[in-house]
Amino acid sequence: MSRVAAPPSGAEAAPFGWPVRVYWEDTDAGGIVYYANYLKFFERARTEWLRERGIHQQALKLETGGMFVVSEARVKYVKSARLDDELWLTTSLTESGRAAMTLHQQAHLKHAGAPVLLCEATIRASWVNALGKPTRIPQVILDKLL
Amino acid sequence: MSRVAAPPSGAEAAPFGWPVRVYWEDTDAGGIVYYANYLKFFERARTEWLRERGIHQQALKLETGGMFVVSEARVKYVKSARLDDELWLTTSLTESGRAAMTLHQQAHLKHAGAPVLLCEATIRASWVNALGKPTRIPQVILDKLL
Amino acid sequence: MSRVAAPPSGAEAAPFGWPVRVYWEDTDAGGIVYYANYLKFFERARTEWLRERGIHQQALKLETGGMFVVSEARVKYVKSARLDDELWLTTSLTESGRAAMTLHQQAHLKHAGAPVLLCEATIRASWVNALGKPTRIPQVILDKLL
Amino acid sequence: MSRVAAPPSGAEAAPFGWPVRVYWEDTDAGGIVYYANYLKFFERARTEWLRERGIHQQALKLETGGMFVVSEARVKYVKSARLDDELWLTTSLTESGRAAMTLHQQAHLKHAGAPVLLCEATIRASWVNALGKPTRIPQVILDKLL
Repeated sequence: MSRVAAPPSGAEAAPFGWPVRVYWEDTDAGGIVYYANYLKFFERARTEWLRERGIHQQALKLETGGMFVVSEARVKYVKSARLDDELWLTTSLTESGRAAMTLHQQAHLKHAGAPVLLCEATIRASWVNALGKPTRIPQVILDKLL
Repeated sequence: MSRVAAPPSGAEAAPFGWPVRVYWEDTDAGGIVYYANYLKFFERARTEWLRERGIHQQALKLETGGMFVVSEARVKYVKSARLDDELWLTTSLTESGRAAMTLHQQAHLKHAGAPVLLCEATIRASWVNALGKPTRIPQVILDKLL
Repeated sequence: MSRVAAPPSGAEAAPFGWPVRVYWEDTDAGGIVYYANYLKFFERARTEWLRERGIHQQALKLETGGMFVVSEARVKYVKSARLDDELWLTTSLTESGRAAMTLHQQAHLKHAGAPVLLCEATIRASWVNALGKPTRIPQVILDKLL
Repeated sequence: MSRVAAPPSGAEAAPFGWPVRVYWEDTDAGGIVYYANYLKFFERARTEWLRERGIHQQALKLETGGMFVVSEARVKYVKSARLDDELWLTTSLTESGRAAMTLHQQAHLKHAGAPVLLCEATIRASWVNALGKPTRIPQVILDKLL
């Protein structure tokens, strides 16, 4: 939780980062990013984190019929983001089991000084087969996750 | 275009109506309903218009693999809607062919006086088969449409 | 968590209920409701729960500039919902403080037998003033909440 | 309509381009990008097109209270996009008046061969002042548009 995201720098064990820009679609009449949309941002970041590991979800779905589904999400909203803001999303694997993985994700506001934490989440994603049944994560994926 | 929607009344040839409430998710930082979301509202209204005719899209998709996809949308935005507003959506079939149908849809603001036109659209929906190829609308649907 | 939602019946201490229909907009390529969209459903249900208590958010925003913002969300996804499914959303106030309230919300699938739990959440909503600063919930709201 | 988008190349009068990746949030149970979401993609592209011209909408909204709102959208859906697809969005100003501008936008699928046209739109955006009334586009914006 105190791990500082490092957008431009390249600290050694820095978590995987992904930029997100706030557009009109992301905001609500309160003038801020609508709370559900952080789950979209986190999902984009997870997808890119998987892609970086060579895990392509559409290809997997076509080949195996299986996919990751979120089984639990714990989200803390700390500060608000607004239209045109640039966010920096980080993703770290905190636990990996046979049937599910747990990720820690943060959204920071990129600005002149230090990044400001806006939102953070713990996400548990489980693997389901083509029938939607929870099952073991295919070995080919597990090999790439760790 | 001048056909007045008649929410509570029951005028004989009144187009099919469906209520939509504006929630936070529908608005943007301009304080109004985000323009893309009217396409969501129109789609809900089309789905209910189909359902009223006994056409259930999930069942059709499971049985035939086919579905309607929008091939063209022409939307005019007249006035803005805001959080908590109650809209009344109308749907009329204006043309029905072998492979596509065209609908006229309007969104009115319900309020004390006459309904106020917010947005209207002409939507062309084509039938595609399980492979995503445009094809004839199944007869079982055509029979229910007219 | 084992409190059964009772859609049509009128059990005395039944939590506030609100129906939600699943449309195309709510689903994703996995064929199920996209995980972030349950937060939209829960928000609609909270809005209606507030409205039933005479709390109108748009009016409050215009009068006071203040609004509720979600500061924490814990969501468990139990089963998936699909296109055309009818959900029943329940909302219960579990804690109310000076500056925030905590709600327990559930989404059940309505079907022939007993309702099936799909998703449940604990939501903490804090009041912020026109400047976006956390502050005391206005007394006029507190009076209506309890 | 026959103007070919040129993602990587640098043809002289090439329209402004912007990449969009398809995530789970963009798709629906048909396995394709939900039709309303192209309006989100086009809006991101317009925002970046404006930004390239030095027009920052959040800053303008804070300074003047005014903003562009879409008054008309004509959208043709040609082919479907799927999860993980990479799109290339182009934006060209086709008409600029005192109170509104008209843009032509296209979404192409980036792939090995020539880009494939997925969707194209003509969008009319009008300027409204802080009260939501249509009014002249501020000169400072007009100067940057042309």
